[in-house]
Amino acid sequence: MVTQAQSRNWPPVIQALEAAVGRDQVVRRREELLVYECDGLTSYRQRPAVVVLPRTTEQVAAAVAVCHRFDVPFVARGAGTGLSGGALPLADSVLIVTAMMRQIEVDIENQRVRVQPGVINHWVTQAVSGAGFYYAPDPSSQSVCSVGGNVAENSGGVHCLKYGVTTNHVLGLTLVLPPGEVVEVGGKVAETPGYDLAGLVVGSEGTLGIATEITLRILKAPEAVQVLLADFTSVEAAGATVSDIIGAGIVPAGMEMMDNFSINAVEDVVATACYPRDAAAILLIEIDGLAAEVADNSERIRAICDRNGARQVTVAVDAEERLRLWKGRKAAFAAMGKLSPDYYVQDGVIPRTQLPQVLRDIEALSQRHGYRVANVFHAGDGNLHPLILYDNSVPGQLEAVEDLGGDILKLCVGVGGSISGEHGIGADKRCYMPAMFSAADLETMQWVRQAIDPKRLANPTKIFPTPATCGEAARAQAQAHFPQVERF
Amino acid sequence: MVTQAQSRNWPPVIQALEAAVGRDQVVRRREELLVYECDGLTSYRQRPAVVVLPRTTEQVAAAVAVCHRFDVPFVARGAGTGLSGGALPLADSVLIVTAMMRQIEVDIENQRVRVQPGVINHWVTQAVSGAGFYYAPDPSSQSVCSVGGNVAENSGGVHCLKYGVTTNHVLGLTLVLPPGEVVEVGGKVAETPGYDLAGLVVGSEGTLGIATEITLRILKAPEAVQVLLADFTSVEAAGATVSDIIGAGIVPAGMEMMDNFSINAVEDVVATACYPRDAAAILLIEIDGLAAEVADNSERIRAICDRNGARQVTVAVDAEERLRLWKGRKAAFAAMGKLSPDYYVQDGVIPRTQLPQVLRDIEALSQRHGYRVANVFHAGDGNLHPLILYDNSVPGQLEAVEDLGGDILKLCVGVGGSISGEHGIGADKRCYMPAMFSAADLETMQWVRQAIDPKRLANPTKIFPTPATCGEAARAQAQAHFPQVERF
Repeated sequence: MVTQAQSRNWPPVIQALEAAVGRDQVVRRREELLVYECDGLTSYRQRPAVVVLPRTTEQVAAAVAVCHRFDVPFVARGAGTGLSGGALPLADSVLIVTAMMRQIEVDIENQRVRVQPGVINHWVTQAVSGAGFYYAPDPSSQSVCSVGGNVAENSGGVHCLKYGVTTNHVLGLTLVLPPGEVVEVGGKVAETPGYDLAGLVVGSEGTLGIATEITLRILKAPEAVQVLLADFTSVEAAGATVSDIIGAGIVPAGMEMMDNFSINAVEDVVATACYPRDAAAILLIEIDGLAAEVADNSERIRAICDRNGARQVTVAVDAEERLRLWKGRKAAFAAMGKLSPDYYVQDGVIPRTQLPQVLRDIEALSQRHGYRVANVFHAGDGNLHPLILYDNSVPGQLEAVEDLGGDILKLCVGVGGSISGEHGIGADKRCYMPAMFSAADLETMQWVRQAIDPKRLANPTKIFPTPATCGEAARAQAQAHFPQVERF
Repeated sequence: MVTQAQSRNWPPVIQALEAAVGRDQVVRRREELLVYECDGLTSYRQRPAVVVLPRTTEQVAAAVAVCHRFDVPFVARGAGTGLSGGALPLADSVLIVTAMMRQIEVDIENQRVRVQPGVINHWVTQAVSGAGFYYAPDPSSQSVCSVGGNVAENSGGVHCLKYGVTTNHVLGLTLVLPPGEVVEVGGKVAETPGYDLAGLVVGSEGTLGIATEITLRILKAPEAVQVLLADFTSVEAAGATVSDIIGAGIVPAGMEMMDNFSINAVEDVVATACYPRDAAAILLIEIDGLAAEVADNSERIRAICDRNGARQVTVAVDAEERLRLWKGRKAAFAAMGKLSPDYYVQDGVIPRTQLPQVLRDIEALSQRHGYRVANVFHAGDGNLHPLILYDNSVPGQLEAVEDLGGDILKLCVGVGGSISGEHGIGADKRCYMPAMFSAADLETMQWVRQAIDPKRLANPTKIFPTPATCGEAARAQAQAHFPQVERF
């Protein structure tokens, strides 16, 4: 699928980029560009024309200004772990990679941290844990993904049930606008007047500019943490347990579900010996807070599990036991990689109350399409992550799997959910946007985009469906395919 | 200060408005327009040319389309309780009042409520309390302010320390754009892809359109609630207590401070007999959650108060006792109204750690300017509400008080804070915006505004400083007055 750069006259652009950021921070040799061909959505690949590796806001601004001057599209990339192709280059583009922007400034007194976008998510917690703090959003990829990418995709994670996603933790940003100007959006305190442009930028997938410094709020580490593992002989019982826990007014830090297929996949590969292979589903429930609060919640949750027919509830109190219980969940995606040459992760949201029905429907779709689907997901906030196993080397399988993925999204939208929980739209799901938004709704977003990026150079092919990428026909089809979401 | 409507040819506009919403929903008699002359910022007054009272989204859209067609500015108004003049009409404007839009649809299963903008804040909680839920943002005016106004100003309240401000509780909006088109922004679940336009609209003070239906999330009512009243012989000790409680990882539902002047004002007027008149400051701390959690937090807070030299800590457990402790705080603004013909409420934010110093500085400013300042505020999130007492009938006092208010904002910005915590910028503080934002930062907001409202008809004189309203000189002065906020 790799196409060649269009017949642009690149030498003057590259010369200007070298002047902007320094010659040693520009990558142009074909073999060195290979590594930038895709992000975590490996089924889409495209080599960029040139890569720049700035170190400062000024260098990013200078590189972006070059793009603006020469009308060259640019795509920002952090660690390249995104799952929707948000950092997928265009053939005719400059890829601006923030991997060398890794400074962290800690301000414990005001409970905030200022980072460059290339800082790895987990480093933020490492930088403040000595003082008893942590950074809450924790994508599964937190040991390798960058904060800049998290900001672009408004990333979530296991603990977002209680603590919210990235946007709830970003106080302000230094933003390089697509014409190359530098502005500050948001601030250093939560209450900033005027339009919430920081909130607008978070989750805009690099289409409104590049965040070059990010002020994050950090939280006090909880006094006590427990993890409970409950196993069930039916998915319904596990789903009802999730609803009952939230309904009781308890907000666990995280509440994850794994189905029987995932349990066995994980046990086959990493052999945790914690997860019962004959369970229909397990729940991993992490609770945190003051010791008394955790003890009390723990008892209540156990009672709710019992009432819903859990066969066993294992409680892990110390750090080592907790890690043991989490190990299988953390290894789940990797386990799929060992069971199957490729897997496609879908990311949809449903109302929690619909869990059992939607999981049954996914199973039926899996059988109808003939591909195995493993369900490992954030049950507490109804954020599904069906993993569809396939073999990309077999012609037609990728397309078939994307069809199945689309059918799963249809399920989500049909029950009042969303086509993305935390992975973003990127290149992968833009053709499904008309399922959630009317033409006028999307146009309003485009007006805003046009205001910030009049030349449409910032990651231009992402998020929004276009006739060129989705086709008018495809768009009409998506609208027909998805029953119009009934307005409240 | 009331000026006359410009020499526009109003009859055809009014005729079109009558056709749009019905003749009985258009107000044009001068004496009936009087009531719409100001909002809660009573020092600014302006009679609108005409008032419309729509009942539905379609009627709002039709009225806005008329304004668009005739190039007439329009201002939206909810209950008119805002404190920054956000709903202040222009002489040449149509005032669109949402007071007749008061429908509520409850969806307990999905923990959300859909309301029209004229619904009173407190009605939301009343509509769901039977099912054990409540709506968290609780401005002091919650028994009279409207959800539409809360959305426009991104209102806060006592419980926003733990639960966040309005934007954290709005899932989606039906929005009438300034050209009269209707779009949906956000959605019915928290995770909605694309640009966060709902977040952009919340707090935009009516400059990006009019929200005509609002989906709010509701929260499970806590099992237990306690209120602690602690009294201190120094403001420093009270401030240190606030920092220590947060530093211990406790997040109270609310944590309010009142200074000696406020305590005595309240006792003079409402005689609660709860607040010690000789205290330098009192803290009112509300904690909520599970019973065990509340009991544990209560003990810890008491210990922290003791360590900081609190003379006494009173704990209110049942609803009646809690109300008794809150009564004085809730009556504080009204008490000022009995002590002084007028008062001006400032709204600034500072880092919590700066509380004692900033309160000393406010006292010094109060003495220098010769006006009494009472401090009653959300101490937990550093959101100050200095109440400046004055007499508007004495020429020059309003201007002098606005000067003092400006000096207080200077203090806030100087320590790294903000010029507004929850009341918005409105008509009142637009000339201070350059203290927090560079020209480029403000211009970026204006681009967004221009994209949504190309004719600049939606509440056109609010939020942003203009040479016409602030004067280039005033703007330069504001910039000189406020030392440039040091970038992190």
